[in-house]
Amino acid sequence: MVQEEHGLRVAYLGPMASYTHQAALDTFPQSRNHTLTPVPDIPSIFQAVQSNNAERGVIPFENSTNGSVVQTLDLLADSKNQYPNIQMCGEAFVRVQHYLLGRKSTSHSQSQPTHRSSPSGANLRHVKSLYSHPQAWTQCTPFLSSAVPGRERHDTSSTSRAAEIVAADKSGSSAAICSALAAELYGLDVLAPDIEEKKGNMTRFLIIRNSPTTSPSSPLSQNGSSSSWKSLLSFTLPQTGSPGALAQALAVFGKYGINLTSMNSRPSGERPWHYIFFIEFQGRRGDGKVDNALAELQSVVARWKTLGTWMSNGGQDGG
Amino acid sequence: MVQEEHGLRVAYLGPMASYTHQAALDTFPQSRNHTLTPVPDIPSIFQAVQSNNAERGVIPFENSTNGSVVQTLDLLADSKNQYPNIQMCGEAFVRVQHYLLGRKSTSHSQSQPTHRSSPSGANLRHVKSLYSHPQAWTQCTPFLSSAVPGRERHDTSSTSRAAEIVAADKSGSSAAICSALAAELYGLDVLAPDIEEKKGNMTRFLIIRNSPTTSPSSPLSQNGSSSSWKSLLSFTLPQTGSPGALAQALAVFGKYGINLTSMNSRPSGERPWHYIFFIEFQGRRGDGKVDNALAELQSVVARWKTLGTWMSNGGQDGG
Repeated sequence: MVQEEHGLRVAYLGPMASYTHQAALDTFPQSRNHTLTPVPDIPSIFQAVQSNNAERGVIPFENSTNGSVVQTLDLLADSKNQYPNIQMCGEAFVRVQHYLLGRKSTSHSQSQPTHRSSPSGANLRHVKSLYSHPQAWTQCTPFLSSAVPGRERHDTSSTSRAAEIVAADKSGSSAAICSALAAELYGLDVLAPDIEEKKGNMTRFLIIRNSPTTSPSSPLSQNGSSSSWKSLLSFTLPQTGSPGALAQALAVFGKYGINLTSMNSRPSGERPWHYIFFIEFQGRRGDGKVDNALAELQSVVARWKTLGTWMSNGGQDGG
Repeated sequence: MVQEEHGLRVAYLGPMASYTHQAALDTFPQSRNHTLTPVPDIPSIFQAVQSNNAERGVIPFENSTNGSVVQTLDLLADSKNQYPNIQMCGEAFVRVQHYLLGRKSTSHSQSQPTHRSSPSGANLRHVKSLYSHPQAWTQCTPFLSSAVPGRERHDTSSTSRAAEIVAADKSGSSAAICSALAAELYGLDVLAPDIEEKKGNMTRFLIIRNSPTTSPSSPLSQNGSSSSWKSLLSFTLPQTGSPGALAQALAVFGKYGINLTSMNSRPSGERPWHYIFFIEFQGRRGDGKVDNALAELQSVVARWKTLGTWMSNGGQDGG
C-alpha cells in the first residue's frame, strides 16, 4: 500500500520492536517523517484514532496459523458505539520470523568463518543464557535443542523486553529470541536468523483512520481497477426469528458475483446467541455491483456498517 | 435432548464441578448409570472417543459472551485426519452462574434469619479469606466489593480447586467462588448464589460420539419435524483462485431456503490464508432440500464433511 502522506502521528500496538511495529514501519516509512508511538493495548489505539490523538493506527487482525484476533473484531463491532468514525484504510502483512540475537563471540570470531545465516551453533558456545517470551520457546524447539541445548532460560513479558535485557548485558554471554527489528533497534548481532519451527507464519495488520463518512473517499478511476480494492462490512440480523435471514444475506453476494475473501462472526453483545457478521470482499462502494448488493442487503439485515475500503497490497499469498 | 442410553462411558472436560461437568450431568443423568470421567484437555476427549475408550465426549463449543472455542473448531476441522469418526450427536446449554460457597456461620446462624439467597453480606462476617480462579474475581467485582470487601484473596488454578481447599478448611472461615455443582460435590453451603456481575452468560457444549458413517442414523419420521434437527458441516474452497467460490457456496443455502444458525471460519492448516468454514443449519441429510443443497455445494467446494446431526434442545434463547 502506498502511503503518500507525510508527518502522520501513528499509534501501533507495542512494545517497540514488536511485529506490529514492523508493520507500522513498512507502511509509514521513517523517510516521510511519521511519528510512530507504541501503545500498550488495542482499545487504546481505537481511542487515540477516534479522538484524533493519532491520524492512523496499526493493529493485528489475523494470523495465518492462529486465525482472527477476536479483540480487534469486537472493537470493530463497536457494540457501545464508542468508535463511530473508525475506518480501515489499509492492510500490511508481516512474516513472523524469530531471530537469535546477542553478541558475536569476540574470542573465536577471528579464527572461525562467520556465517550470519548458519544455525549450526558453531558460533554459539559463548551463549550461556537465553531470554524470550514463553511462546517463543515452543515456536523454536528444534533450533533450541540442536544449537543451544541446556542453556538457562529466562522468561520475559515480550520478545522486545528480552532484547533489551540482552543489550544491557555487557558480558556478551546472553542471547534473546526476537524479531529482526529488535537487532536494529537494540544494536544486537544476529546469531542465527529464522529459527522458528513453522515457516511461513504470517500476520496481517489493519491500518485504521478517523473518517466520519463511509462513502468512498476517492473516485473509482483513481487507482487501479475495482478488483484491486477490498472492503470490510459488518451486519447483524433482526432480533426476532427470521428463518433463513443469514442465508439470504449471504446469497446477495453470490447473486452479484462478488468475491468474498473472508468471513467471521462474533457475539453481537446485544443478547445471548445473537451475532455480528464480518464480510470482507473485493470491490468497494461506488462500484455498481457492490452498490446493488448493499442495497439488497439492507432489506434483510437489522444493521450494517462499512468498516473501510483499501487497496489490496498483494502481500496475502493467494486467497 | 433425551439420551435413552444407559451405562455409557462419558469423557468431559474437567476438573470435577466444572461447567462442562454440569453439562455432562444434565445430558447423562446419574440415574442411568453412566460413568463420567474428567479429562484434562479437549484433544484428549477427541482421542478417547475416536479410540472408543469413551462412548461420548462433552466439550465446550461457544460462550454467549466470548464466542466460539477455537480449539474445539480446530479439532473438528481435523486437518491431520486424526479424528475421522468424530460426530456431534447433541448439544447442552449451561448458564454460567457463580456462587459463594463455604460454611455457614455457626455462632450467629441461630439468632439470625438465614437467607440462602441474600447477597447482603449479613451472614458473611465469619468469612476471612476467599479462594477462586483469577477470572472469577473480575466477573464478580460488584458483589465482592459490597458483600466481602477487604478479604484476603487466594488465586487457584480452577474454581473447583478453590472449592476443594475450602472444603478442607475446618475453621469455616474461608469461602470459594465456584459453580453450584461444587457445593453439592464438595459438601459446602451456599453463602450467596448468583454473584456474577453479568447475568445471562451461557455456554453451549457439544456431545460427540464415534460414528464411522456420516449418513443419518435414524429415519426422518423418528422424532419431530425436520426443523427440530440441526446439523454442522465444514467445507474448504479450491486451492487455486476461484473468485466468488465462497459467495457461491453460501448462496446454495439461501437458494434452498435453509436456515443457517451459525457460521465460523478458521485457518485450514493447509496453507496460509486458506480457510475452513463451519456452517450450522436447521435440518439434516435425508431431508430433500438439505440433500439438494449439499449436492450443489459439492460442485463448488474442495472438500466438505458433515460433522453431525442432533435434535435441537431448545436451550438456546432465540437465534
